Amino acid sequence: MSPQRRSGLGTNQEAIRRHNLGTVLRHVHGAGQISRAELTSRTGLNRSTIAGLVGELESLGLSERTSPVEGVRQGAGRPSAGVRIAADGPYVIAVDLGVDRAVVARTGLGGRVLQRAHAAVDSDGEAWQVGAAVAALIRTVVEDAPASAPLVGIGISVPGLVRRSDGLIRLAPNLEWHDVSFGGIVLAALGLDVPVCLANDADLGALAEHTRGAGVGTGELIYVSGNVGVGAGIITGGQRLEGAGGYAGEVGHLRFNPDGRPCHCGSRGCWETEVGAHAIAAAIQCPPDKVAQLDEVLDGFDTPSAALRSTGTALGQGLASLVNMFNPQMVVLGGYFRSLYRLVAAEVDAGLVDRALPAPLESVTLSLPGLGSDSPLLGAAEIALEPLFTDPVAALGTALVDVQGRLAG
Amino acid sequence: MSPQRRSGLGTNQEAIRRHNLGTVLRHVHGAGQISRAELTSRTGLNRSTIAGLVGELESLGLSERTSPVEGVRQGAGRPSAGVRIAADGPYVIAVDLGVDRAVVARTGLGGRVLQRAHAAVDSDGEAWQVGAAVAALIRTVVEDAPASAPLVGIGISVPGLVRRSDGLIRLAPNLEWHDVSFGGIVLAALGLDVPVCLANDADLGALAEHTRGAGVGTGELIYVSGNVGVGAGIITGGQRLEGAGGYAGEVGHLRFNPDGRPCHCGSRGCWETEVGAHAIAAAIQCPPDKVAQLDEVLDGFDTPSAALRSTGTALGQGLASLVNMFNPQMVVLGGYFRSLYRLVAAEVDAGLVDRALPAPLESVTLSLPGLGSDSPLLGAAEIALEPLFTDPVAALGTALVDVQGRLAG
Ligand SMILES: [Zn+2]
Ligand SMILES: [Zn+2]
Repeated sequence: MSPQRRSGLGTNQEAIRRHNLGTVLRHVHGAGQISRAELTSRTGLNRSTIAGLVGELESLGLSERTSPVEGVRQGAGRPSAGVRIAADGPYVIAVDLGVDRAVVARTGLGGRVLQRAHAAVDSDGEAWQVGAAVAALIRTVVEDAPASAPLVGIGISVPGLVRRSDGLIRLAPNLEWHDVSFGGIVLAALGLDVPVCLANDADLGALAEHTRGAGVGTGELIYVSGNVGVGAGIITGGQRLEGAGGYAGEVGHLRFNPDGRPCHCGSRGCWETEVGAHAIAAAIQCPPDKVAQLDEVLDGFDTPSAALRSTGTALGQGLASLVNMFNPQMVVLGGYFRSLYRLVAAEVDAGLVDRALPAPLESVTLSLPGLGSDSPLLGAAEIALEPLFTDPVAALGTALVDVQGRLAG
Repeated sequence: MSPQRRSGLGTNQEAIRRHNLGTVLRHVHGAGQISRAELTSRTGLNRSTIAGLVGELESLGLSERTSPVEGVRQGAGRPSAGVRIAADGPYVIAVDLGVDRAVVARTGLGGRVLQRAHAAVDSDGEAWQVGAAVAALIRTVVEDAPASAPLVGIGISVPGLVRRSDGLIRLAPNLEWHDVSFGGIVLAALGLDVPVCLANDADLGALAEHTRGAGVGTGELIYVSGNVGVGAGIITGGQRLEGAGGYAGEVGHLRFNPDGRPCHCGSRGCWETEVGAHAIAAAIQCPPDKVAQLDEVLDGFDTPSAALRSTGTALGQGLASLVNMFNPQMVVLGGYFRSLYRLVAAEVDAGLVDRALPAPLESVTLSLPGLGSDSPLLGAAEIALEPLFTDPVAALGTALVDVQGRLAG
């Protein structure tokens, strides 16, 4: 988002100032630490405006000044003073809800994970039971938060279809949830009222990899999430492709093998039935109750079996459809595809090369996530932090302090 | 594109004025005729600025004033004066290059086709032969152009993969062209030097349907082009999805039936081999030399055969993959799919409903093109007109007048 310059023609100067304040904060958040000279150059705002905004961020407890950054000089003048994310500043709660486990992290600006916890999830559990388990993890990760640090909001990554307008989980197939208002359930279990936003796990993986992972600066990126379900988050023109309702990217149900196994969607032989976690597990004779540890199981293998190699080929062939359809610069292999790709990279590459058209093939790179298995979690943090970059003053106004006291009370 | 307000902070006022001039022209172009009050409201510019810009468009020969538009009043005051596209203003040449025929149209602002011509194309012909045939059609359609009317540029719709950076045709499979600089070939055959831009036919169909067809105001739209090849143009967030190189939308090579017919791409059973023109022709026992008239042949049918009905099912099932992947509001069925859909709508709908996920399915509409078979042609006109909306003064500066004299000379 570009900063707006001041204008006297009927615009609200205070709104523009807050917008610019958020834009400067977004740059500090993205870089972690940045010189004022760099902020001037990235935002196009002048030095005195930047000085004023940086001062205000500091007085809001969002950033702090650093000694002049080595080697960064403003023109011929003195080294430029720097800005970094404040210690003990505001934080968000990021939740990565999986089919078999939940990870929760207290996360600060700059994507810093300050405290984390995880627990197994019973995929047969009711939504309120899972909500209670997530609430318990949230209580754990705020234990050491300073009482004065404001909680801005909660972001939740979901293995399913999330309606953009209100965050309703329309379908989480492997949890067997339909039309579940999970955000409200978690807030009720906590007894807190803070902003909560939900989005699809692959969409959030794409967002995080684009913001601070393997795809920084990559305007055309696909993050393919290989878990029990298979989905994709798509960045095009630097923006998330959401579709009309927020459901875009359901690549797991691409027709792959019309004579194949039945899929929960009612069809047969969807790509997910050939490359999803259960297909990978079957290829390595991993028992169903170990699928939640598929990463560790795969990492224990040296030589892939023929069945695993052909799963790799199917992965590459399906990726070819995505390359033909979206012409991305980068495809990031998330979830269990990380471990799978290490074992059968040659087969995946061959399947891709075999089926992709030469023109889109020539500019695409397959990549492992820069954030390891944390991409969806950090994407959940990003959407929860977003209000701070739109209007930091308003976001801090609705944030909660003394969260631990409130949870105890 | 939103207009920019003036600002004294180091911006170029002349550049902003030209940008605003182009933005106003874009609104007149989109509406054909529009009141000044509506221009004020759509652009956010004030009345006196609009009056000045409208006066300048008029003096550039781009628009003319109309008597106050009936029923449109500016606040409590007088009816607002109107603006419409100038007669005898600038024009572009739009070319729709098909596998079996080319259509060429002299087209003015507002998407008005002023003169058109078409000819059969020999799909075995060399690119220079096809270029000469297109040049001859261009000579025909400029015959009645006023000598004073400026030619702004040429836009060409191509049944293949076009590199965005320079318009090189990387692959037009059914013409058997690889890396053909067709824009240069046409200009050389004409002996003219004007801006020429090329793009994929389905991308241009999507653009035209979004600008002035069935999808006006629809931010998430897919135009599926069913010709000898099958491709899609995708609009998301109101913008064309182009991908890294301009090649996005190659949905014809989605894996559909792994045991199916061989495809020119080297794979087997791609969606295009099941629903492309040759598959439709086979389903109605239409001889190969009649495929160019498939529309007329299909329109002669009353009752679809079982084979044609199953082609309809395959069309719907493939569309389901697009709906799952892009979550569009509207899918526009272009090319031969227009005539096919009239015959087997029930089968197409059933195939779609059967395979699409409920959440993205509930908000999607299948539609016939608002522009009939002219969508790619009018999309080609749009990209050729585009420089007029960026900077009308510069675009007119590079335009050619007395085109017929130059072509004769
Ligand atoms: Zn499925
Ligand atoms: Zn193919």
